[in-house]
Amino acid sequence: MRKQNYPIFIGLLLTFFNAATAADKPPAPFNRADLAAAATLRERASVDTTAYQLIESLTTEVGPRPAGSAGDKAAVAWALREMNRLGFANVHTVETMVPHWVRGEAEFSVLAPFPQTMPTLALGGSVGTGNEGIETDAVMVKDLDALAALPAGAVKDKIVFFSNRMDRTRDGSGYGKAVAVRAGGPSKAAELGAVGVVIRSISTSDSRFPHTGALRYASTAPRIPALAISNPDADALVRQFDSGKPVRLRIRSTSRDLPPAPSASVVGEIPGTDLAHEIVILGAHLDSWDPGVGAIDDGAGVAIMMGVARLIGGLDVKPRRTIRVVLFANEEFGTSGSLSYVAANEADVARHVLGFEADFGAGPVWRLSSRVNPVQLPAVDQIFKALAPLKLVRGDNEARGGADLEGLSKRGMPILEPGLDGTNYFDVHHTANDTLAQVDPKALRQSLAAFATTVWLGAQYSGTWERVTTEKAPRR
Amino acid sequence: MRKQNYPIFIGLLLTFFNAATAADKPPAPFNRADLAAAATLRERASVDTTAYQLIESLTTEVGPRPAGSAGDKAAVAWALREMNRLGFANVHTVETMVPHWVRGEAEFSVLAPFPQTMPTLALGGSVGTGNEGIETDAVMVKDLDALAALPAGAVKDKIVFFSNRMDRTRDGSGYGKAVAVRAGGPSKAAELGAVGVVIRSISTSDSRFPHTGALRYASTAPRIPALAISNPDADALVRQFDSGKPVRLRIRSTSRDLPPAPSASVVGEIPGTDLAHEIVILGAHLDSWDPGVGAIDDGAGVAIMMGVARLIGGLDVKPRRTIRVVLFANEEFGTSGSLSYVAANEADVARHVLGFEADFGAGPVWRLSSRVNPVQLPAVDQIFKALAPLKLVRGDNEARGGADLEGLSKRGMPILEPGLDGTNYFDVHHTANDTLAQVDPKALRQSLAAFATTVWLGAQYSGTWERVTTEKAPRR
Repeated sequence: MRKQNYPIFIGLLLTFFNAATAADKPPAPFNRADLAAAATLRERASVDTTAYQLIESLTTEVGPRPAGSAGDKAAVAWALREMNRLGFANVHTVETMVPHWVRGEAEFSVLAPFPQTMPTLALGGSVGTGNEGIETDAVMVKDLDALAALPAGAVKDKIVFFSNRMDRTRDGSGYGKAVAVRAGGPSKAAELGAVGVVIRSISTSDSRFPHTGALRYASTAPRIPALAISNPDADALVRQFDSGKPVRLRIRSTSRDLPPAPSASVVGEIPGTDLAHEIVILGAHLDSWDPGVGAIDDGAGVAIMMGVARLIGGLDVKPRRTIRVVLFANEEFGTSGSLSYVAANEADVARHVLGFEADFGAGPVWRLSSRVNPVQLPAVDQIFKALAPLKLVRGDNEARGGADLEGLSKRGMPILEPGLDGTNYFDVHHTANDTLAQVDPKALRQSLAAFATTVWLGAQYSGTWERVTTEKAPRR
Repeated sequence: MRKQNYPIFIGLLLTFFNAATAADKPPAPFNRADLAAAATLRERASVDTTAYQLIESLTTEVGPRPAGSAGDKAAVAWALREMNRLGFANVHTVETMVPHWVRGEAEFSVLAPFPQTMPTLALGGSVGTGNEGIETDAVMVKDLDALAALPAGAVKDKIVFFSNRMDRTRDGSGYGKAVAVRAGGPSKAAELGAVGVVIRSISTSDSRFPHTGALRYASTAPRIPALAISNPDADALVRQFDSGKPVRLRIRSTSRDLPPAPSASVVGEIPGTDLAHEIVILGAHLDSWDPGVGAIDDGAGVAIMMGVARLIGGLDVKPRRTIRVVLFANEEFGTSGSLSYVAANEADVARHVLGFEADFGAGPVWRLSSRVNPVQLPAVDQIFKALAPLKLVRGDNEARGGADLEGLSKRGMPILEPGLDGTNYFDVHHTANDTLAQVDPKALRQSLAAFATTVWLGAQYSGTWERVTTEKAPRR
């Protein structure tokens, strides 16, 4: 009998407690209609075909669109056309200048001990070798630390081969650890007298695709050419070094810089209502590397963000805050599109109250992270609850955001980050194999659902998105 | 109580039956020592590292070895060296002339409606376009039947694009159905006035690797250039056609024929004992296509056959029949190595009493098929029984063998076929991606175990391998 009395007693206690605290409790972050609309978005996303069709259209009709190229211009025209077709408001461009590097041809051969020619790609921004190429002995080092530990003169007049292989991770952290060799390796080697660099691609793939990506020349070192080879070829080159015989290489690249070119980021909105002056910004990038057609990098992000705005624009209820999609120019070559956007919106930086970026493939989304003012964490918890049918993991509040929102994020804009699963992303990223065939339509729909739900609730939040004061380095 | 009597009764009945039939029964196909040695081979294969090291060595030190190339000569030297190192007897070459086709460069671009450049490979044997290339409108057809059904003049002065996609199958039957377009498409299109051909690669992969492979020009048609594009690009090209706008293409290839060159098949043996004059031939091919390094096609076959002979040579008991490994020259470009081998062994064709070929990747082996005289099927059943720990499926007696044993097979030589699992083989076959990374060491060891067991028992068989009279078309 006493057992049966417990629930009644607890019930009474809770009633008393609720009554006592009701006066101090903030209003619920989301009302019932917001949550119902979130469920509608999730359901519509789960049968959406528009996002996939956007990637199909962009990759088929535009294809490669590296900064400064004809494809870059075609992509801007495509984005304007598609945003208008989808009924976005305030469709416009934000002009920017972009570097205009041209790949040309590239060749990589092992001359000794065992002659072999291997597929290669110049790193983005690499100087060429001159048409005759460079033929010299090579030194293998694992990474920048191993290079720095070599005796003086060890790489003088030689080609340095960086052999380190990146780790496969879900959150992309393997990339961050490995990529320093690509960005900084050429100048570090040049400072020590090397005449060229070959890197094992920053890649998790066992397929024979070299991966490009931007290098960054230091102003203090000679600019030397730098190429990447695939993992299987890097393994084969390691075996050549392991034979103990001297390794002689030939590299050739006709890559070169042309004068900077005009380009533009493309903007479109779903207008808000009572908080229309507050902007929830959805960023992705319109440019791509040239060897592939940019389906996962970043056609998928373009499609997710345009798809989210379209789904929200199609609801009966209109968002409180304005949803602004920005398809940034030139993410890959120094984020000048993002920098120009912030400059053009200098007076309105504080109006950007919440940011989302999709630049990590087609998903699925597996985690919800954030970088918000801690007072808002209960609201993020509520959003996470609304995402329950998508079975995400609750991430931390240390989200690093993407490269294109770095400028706004540094200025205190909160970030919500539906985390795209990057387990296989670095198999394809920055390769010729970045095609539509790498996009899983089911994963894309799930990602669309996760982003749409999160963006929508972010736009409806009953409180104020307070600014964030801590700084975090961007992931990419 | 009655229940317990049944086993006794059945036991008595079996004893009686065995006694009654013993006089008529042929001797067991394999004695206890043979079966024990088969188990030893299987165990040793399961921890073997030599076969994998052979592929590693061949792909690292020789690499691409298309007929007539410097790599072709290096491969012959490699095989002689390795066969001697492994202690094979009677190591020698069988000279042959081989075609010497040189790939040169190849380019493929869609000029309209949506300009895109796609990776391409010339088909093996294709004539070049001339340095200036060919630029013209294109017609898409699914396959040879669809081409034949076009109205007269439909492809005159145009490029024909064959769009059919091959099916993924375990036994490779999808390849046989799809490959006619590659072999015969160029001449069929030329007969109708076409000036060039582009095929969707004979491929099961979604990666952006075009697949090469030999074409066969008919003597009755002009020789027109033919290129292959990958599946993702073929899909993109289909979408361009599906836009309804005229499709204009540009193709360019500098491929050309040089004069035929000398090459050689390489032979080595584990000598037999009481039936040493009977030869169990193990065939694989030493040549490869040029874009990859020939790890699965056919480094794996080379390694399996050399590995089998090495394992058998390492047994305490010596084989009854002679095991002869033949690494054929030039399988890919008309099997001239195989034809020359048969010509050189014309007087000894009948001594080739049993054949095995490994030219379908690294495995695992999933099936045991045969093409033997039906009187020998009980022996094949016994071999299948000995393979039980490897969990194979029992195939039929319609094995088609491989291209290099076709000459001997047509002359009545029985074939045993441990069937290599080809589910993923056509993802990689004839591409730049045919590298060591595509070889699964575990599958290779299982294949080695299956081949070693089967070859050994074939060499020990107590009966006579009768000739086969029916003819079957070769698979590849």
